[in-house]
Amino acid sequence: MTQVSLNFERSEYADRITRTRRVMAERGIDLLIVTDPSNMHWLTGYDGWSFYVHQCVLLPLDGDPLWYGRGQDANGARRTVFMADDNIIGYPDHYVQSTERHPMDFLSGIIESKGWGRQAIGVEKDNYYFSAACLDSLRANLPNATFKDATALVNWQRAVKSPREIEYMNRAARIVEAMHARILDLVEPGMRKNDLVAEILHTAARGADGHGGDYAAIVPLLPSGIDASAPHLTWDDRRFKSGEGTFFEIAGCHKRYHCPLSRTIYLGKPPQKFLDTEKAVLDGMAAALDAAKPGATCEDVEAAWRKTIAKYGLEKESRCGYPIGLSYPPDWGERTMSLRPGDKTVLEAGMCFHLIPAIWQDDWGLEITESFRITDGGSETFCRYPRQLFVKD
Amino acid sequence: MTQVSLNFERSEYADRITRTRRVMAERGIDLLIVTDPSNMHWLTGYDGWSFYVHQCVLLPLDGDPLWYGRGQDANGARRTVFMADDNIIGYPDHYVQSTERHPMDFLSGIIESKGWGRQAIGVEKDNYYFSAACLDSLRANLPNATFKDATALVNWQRAVKSPREIEYMNRAARIVEAMHARILDLVEPGMRKNDLVAEILHTAARGADGHGGDYAAIVPLLPSGIDASAPHLTWDDRRFKSGEGTFFEIAGCHKRYHCPLSRTIYLGKPPQKFLDTEKAVLDGMAAALDAAKPGATCEDVEAAWRKTIAKYGLEKESRCGYPIGLSYPPDWGERTMSLRPGDKTVLEAGMCFHLIPAIWQDDWGLEITESFRITDGGSETFCRYPRQLFVKD
Repeated sequence: MTQVSLNFERSEYADRITRTRRVMAERGIDLLIVTDPSNMHWLTGYDGWSFYVHQCVLLPLDGDPLWYGRGQDANGARRTVFMADDNIIGYPDHYVQSTERHPMDFLSGIIESKGWGRQAIGVEKDNYYFSAACLDSLRANLPNATFKDATALVNWQRAVKSPREIEYMNRAARIVEAMHARILDLVEPGMRKNDLVAEILHTAARGADGHGGDYAAIVPLLPSGIDASAPHLTWDDRRFKSGEGTFFEIAGCHKRYHCPLSRTIYLGKPPQKFLDTEKAVLDGMAAALDAAKPGATCEDVEAAWRKTIAKYGLEKESRCGYPIGLSYPPDWGERTMSLRPGDKTVLEAGMCFHLIPAIWQDDWGLEITESFRITDGGSETFCRYPRQLFVKD
Repeated sequence: MTQVSLNFERSEYADRITRTRRVMAERGIDLLIVTDPSNMHWLTGYDGWSFYVHQCVLLPLDGDPLWYGRGQDANGARRTVFMADDNIIGYPDHYVQSTERHPMDFLSGIIESKGWGRQAIGVEKDNYYFSAACLDSLRANLPNATFKDATALVNWQRAVKSPREIEYMNRAARIVEAMHARILDLVEPGMRKNDLVAEILHTAARGADGHGGDYAAIVPLLPSGIDASAPHLTWDDRRFKSGEGTFFEIAGCHKRYHCPLSRTIYLGKPPQKFLDTEKAVLDGMAAALDAAKPGATCEDVEAAWRKTIAKYGLEKESRCGYPIGLSYPPDWGERTMSLRPGDKTVLEAGMCFHLIPAIWQDDWGLEITESFRITDGGSETFCRYPRQLFVKD
């Protein structure tokens, strides 16, 4: 079967595997069961919307990784992973969503047959796609194995991006800029929200500069007025109204790499609280971006933001940023570092974050955000889109 | 805070809760922890893209359910659930994606404080959003509780749809018809796949008959040529080619209710195998739809399909259908029944399925599907869209 083209050189996959194995060895893990679709993709290239059934990549300390998934998805693995066909294992369809048998039961047989049944096995215990039933099945079927928590072990290896990854994120940045420009051009009182979403998704898929758009790991969030007090409401078919602010939290995506960017648009004359908050947020963001550089810590960046907005009498309990890159639904964050007090992770060149110093008040909200990467000397935003509250009066 | 309008009458939520509690009582479950976003929505109305952090609905045997989630998402709950504010509990942000503390640790304290710490607690053990770490946290923090597997307990209560639910699915059917019409109108050799996706997503969000489109739980799948041998590849920016078949597996969605429908389009003159397979599939589908009626079982429907295509020398290992309705990513199936051998669930009026007798061969594939509901006397498809292989030569 003809191989599709991989998104990265083989040497890059080899390097990723080497980095992961180094940490496995440090933690005494012989075999890693990788269930996070982003981690599966990052290690092997696997790309398909099949994560609604159980699947994983098995990474032993030697040899190529194994792809394990539903039988019918094995062809999708053959079309997307770098490994040879005999490293692709499908399970029978009567294991799918069955009350009598679990795909991890079948996997345990494979692990035994490979001689790994007495090993120390790392599992992503707190991953969306590794349910409590998965671990109970493995524990019951592999009584001689030792299970170690390897949540986010691979995610951490993804933190520093390669030049090719940065290139994909730059393409995603051009896409999200185009999406915001389209929103600003079209939004007006009386327009149904779902009709604006149609235009946003259209622009997202068309892409920019000749590079097509991929699906983002989160759908557009565009709450208006009092709904903007909540960060994660999606849309309905009500109409935009004058006298309301709406934040647009969206991302461009290219080959599964994301560049999120939020902007807020006020239709009509904004109340003073919007203008005051805009000023505080912009000042706080400038301080945070200034603090973001190699050698500084995640909490240093947050402290710079926090101190600056305190001057304006503003407080924000939740974290003000998280790492970004390759992702699948339901989250475009990498779930490792957080820009918040107590996170002493030291920043390195190539790390990429979404700085999201969102302000959600009791009956309104404002989001102005930037995605940025740590450079050798400081930080650089991915987007070149006006950083402001937009007003259409 | 002003309540947004609920998608259903309060009496419908009350009825859903009553049905769920009846099964809880039968199974000796005192408290149900509901982590599936579809189940959370179905029981309470909660609607937000916040399932990337831990959250749940607590359903005791008496009183209103409790919504539990991230502090910043509590406002989203206030905007969407039917319960009063004091049934909404947010956890502090330093529990989010932390390596030191887990949101289920915090929840255990709440369960203890409510006097439920010695109860029989049902958990959705094999749900995407109930990780192995969730159960380990609850087991460690609530040593006097008994944990029972309640996977799909709520999903099963969702099987028979109410008239209002059917109405939403009919609206979704109009949307997916419009999406397929748009595809057929536009697809041609030389068009980039992502550009066609832009049109599909645009039509999906615009909606039909004045009803706006919501996001589907799965993105459009549209593999061409050899890629169509795999069911779950998404898209890229390559161009459609003459001499290739493409299947379009898509769904219309309205207020989170889905109507999936797949069609295959061949650009150029189709090889005989496409035409032969089309005939077998259409015959098999007619037989399956004919067998689908109250009193028949899931496996009866599959057997009708299987016997019919066997006459054409065709076999299909994987199930040929699953229940549909309300859903969130990553799956628009309900994960209860399957149309496959061994599933003896008896069909009832109001149950809704996606009949997906897809044929994935070594180097090509064909999908022609229908969503249907069981009626008092038989079955009825949601869509009125030509059931055929389309050819654009």
